[in-house]
Amino acid sequence: VEAGDRAALEALLEPLHAADIADLLEQIEMRDRRALLDLWSDALNGEVLSELDDNLREELLRTLPPEQLARAVRELESDDVVDLVEDLDQDRQEALLGALPAHERAAVEKALAYPDYSAGRLMQVEVVRAPQHWSVGEAIDFLRHGEGLPDQFYHVILVDPRMHPVGYVGLGRILSSGRQVRLQDLTEDSFRTFHVEDEEGAVAYAFNQYHLISAPVVDDEDRLVGVITIDDAMNVLGEELGEDMMRLGGVAGEAVMSDSVRETTRQRLPWLAVNLATAIIASGVIALFEETIGALVALAVLMPIVASMGGNAGTQSLTVAVRAIATRDLTTKNLWRVIRREAAVGLINGAVFAVVMGLVGLFWFGSPMLGTVIAVAMVINLVIAGLSGVLVPVVLDRLGADPALASGTFVTTVTDVVGFFAFLGLASVVLL
Amino acid sequence: VEAGDRAALEALLEPLHAADIADLLEQIEMRDRRALLDLWSDALNGEVLSELDDNLREELLRTLPPEQLARAVRELESDDVVDLVEDLDQDRQEALLGALPAHERAAVEKALAYPDYSAGRLMQVEVVRAPQHWSVGEAIDFLRHGEGLPDQFYHVILVDPRMHPVGYVGLGRILSSGRQVRLQDLTEDSFRTFHVEDEEGAVAYAFNQYHLISAPVVDDEDRLVGVITIDDAMNVLGEELGEDMMRLGGVAGEAVMSDSVRETTRQRLPWLAVNLATAIIASGVIALFEETIGALVALAVLMPIVASMGGNAGTQSLTVAVRAIATRDLTTKNLWRVIRREAAVGLINGAVFAVVMGLVGLFWFGSPMLGTVIAVAMVINLVIAGLSGVLVPVVLDRLGADPALASGTFVTTVTDVVGFFAFLGLASVVLL
Repeated sequence: VEAGDRAALEALLEPLHAADIADLLEQIEMRDRRALLDLWSDALNGEVLSELDDNLREELLRTLPPEQLARAVRELESDDVVDLVEDLDQDRQEALLGALPAHERAAVEKALAYPDYSAGRLMQVEVVRAPQHWSVGEAIDFLRHGEGLPDQFYHVILVDPRMHPVGYVGLGRILSSGRQVRLQDLTEDSFRTFHVEDEEGAVAYAFNQYHLISAPVVDDEDRLVGVITIDDAMNVLGEELGEDMMRLGGVAGEAVMSDSVRETTRQRLPWLAVNLATAIIASGVIALFEETIGALVALAVLMPIVASMGGNAGTQSLTVAVRAIATRDLTTKNLWRVIRREAAVGLINGAVFAVVMGLVGLFWFGSPMLGTVIAVAMVINLVIAGLSGVLVPVVLDRLGADPALASGTFVTTVTDVVGFFAFLGLASVVLL
Repeated sequence: VEAGDRAALEALLEPLHAADIADLLEQIEMRDRRALLDLWSDALNGEVLSELDDNLREELLRTLPPEQLARAVRELESDDVVDLVEDLDQDRQEALLGALPAHERAAVEKALAYPDYSAGRLMQVEVVRAPQHWSVGEAIDFLRHGEGLPDQFYHVILVDPRMHPVGYVGLGRILSSGRQVRLQDLTEDSFRTFHVEDEEGAVAYAFNQYHLISAPVVDDEDRLVGVITIDDAMNVLGEELGEDMMRLGGVAGEAVMSDSVRETTRQRLPWLAVNLATAIIASGVIALFEETIGALVALAVLMPIVASMGGNAGTQSLTVAVRAIATRDLTTKNLWRVIRREAAVGLINGAVFAVVMGLVGLFWFGSPMLGTVIAVAMVINLVIAGLSGVLVPVVLDRLGADPALASGTFVTTVTDVVGFFAFLGLASVVLL
């Protein structure tokens, strides 16, 4: 299609959802992307821009003519504009905001004043509200004549005369009640408000935990300033989970497929550098026992097994712990129980593999003592692995750090050092 | 509170959300849990049961008297009942279904006939539908007199006379339009239907990709049989992401904090066994070079560094690839570009750490040749790591297997074997 046939291209892309066009742009080569956009620049409307990966979007925003950008931005709701604008540099931001009508511009600028990753950034200011004394009929009449209603809304938020939200009513309840019923009598139990500075992760957690669809956001004076809807919360939840997974895998949280070689190297090199430093520490432990290894080379053959089993067991309990901290299933209430569980599981798995490795040591190298040494080292390392897998992320979390960040390197350093030390140390005492 | 003060306990728990009560039950010790439930058995109503972790729920369902169970189940919507019932054994299932009114029982049994993890299991049969020729006024009158409306609904689904869904109208649009407006003129573009046998992962993907709130489900004849709402889709999305993360960490997907020691051991032991087997393979590679190591023990000190760096780099590209396969950002369209990117990143990172390790080899062991060997081995291993990190999950995915499952072990086996082989092999040729 990239042979220059504009009409055919348009016919092909027109019926696609914005999210699919964005995916297409992310997946093709840079050269094809440029050709496609030269051919059919309308492809980049506001909705498609909102759906793009961050890095690619930034790149495209830089090349887009300002008029087209302004047109694209005017179609969006305030939270999407904020999302689009927040990563731009000062100049571009100004230029883009200048294209908005004054009241929308004010809304976006206000949102940008809230901290990154706060409820204030996430919310849209387009809110459907009603005085608390209204009846169903009044609400319907208001909605029928209302202007500037948001595209999608799920609740009418009831406010008192000072604009404090006091409850909300689902549209389903309004529709299924008579005109004379008072809105106050229809409010739902699930009602809860967020503060503009609440962290977006906490908002997403509450949406998931309490099955919310939309929720009002209030300022310091408890006044209604916006609303967060479930699609925004779902996005945050997906992102946070994805980021935890990435960090556990030792990659910067925002890594995506459309990143360039340079970007990817930048995301991964620092982690590898940390890993190198810790690997050198583990090597230092081995170096302590150079003589022992020189006397019995079988030790060099077997030692990676102890370390690898410890690393794997540690990663297992680490993964479960990081996930549980994120979903708030690991708290002070059950920490002690979980620690005991991890120790018990480490002991059981350690015992099982101790027997296996003892036999391997015996039959491969014909040495019962070597078998005993590796068996004992295995038990020690798997118990330590289980414990460090829980304690490292919990301690990081208490210190206010991201429990997923760098935990993996910490834990494998512990298991490497303990594994090598236990195995080679025991060997040097027992075998020589 | 567990000192037997029933009234105080009730006062404490009554205002809590079902999800919070479930969390509380998950986090306390088994003994306390039993005491709590003996004291206040109402704690276990249907909603709390729906919120519990699978294993704990099964345990509690076994101990609950049938009458209480029946009462609990009657409050729930059909999809929640299905969720509760599907893991029970035949006898318990029958007993529980017997407690339901006939039409609800039929609905649940029908849902259970659909495959596990299908749209049919996920949907609720309580649907709000209207003939396509209705006006807004007719719809409102219908809703006002409607019985058995679901607790929460977001769209009225339009059906033709043969019950085929032809579009849907958001409640916001109904409320903001005059009584005489035809529903057909208000339908939304986002409309798409799912088939009962569609996989739940695909449903969750579509909800996320196209920002859906609810979507109709149809049977083989294209007739409307149910509706899936965003909270169900959000659940599935969260679960799938969490499972991918667990599997990458080498843990059975459903692992949670409330699992017992036995359950936890069962989830982790098989993976450790696989890891042991692959670690022994890597040891076998080392064993091939026993003589070389005997001649130069420094090799034993440095070899874990090469393997560890490879393992980490492989895990990095694996993590990104698994995530991208799940979000459908890694497809045949960009596979080739991603492979080239991984190779390039491996080469760059390899070169950087080759220089570092070359210097370490030189200054620690005073041997330029040893430095050269480890540098070359590092480059080779990091390139292989990048490639296997992408290719292993892609191949698993093509073969119809879960790309997260066992990928980690595969990749680290490759990097261990390649790392040891490259380092020790080169050393035996160059240094001896």
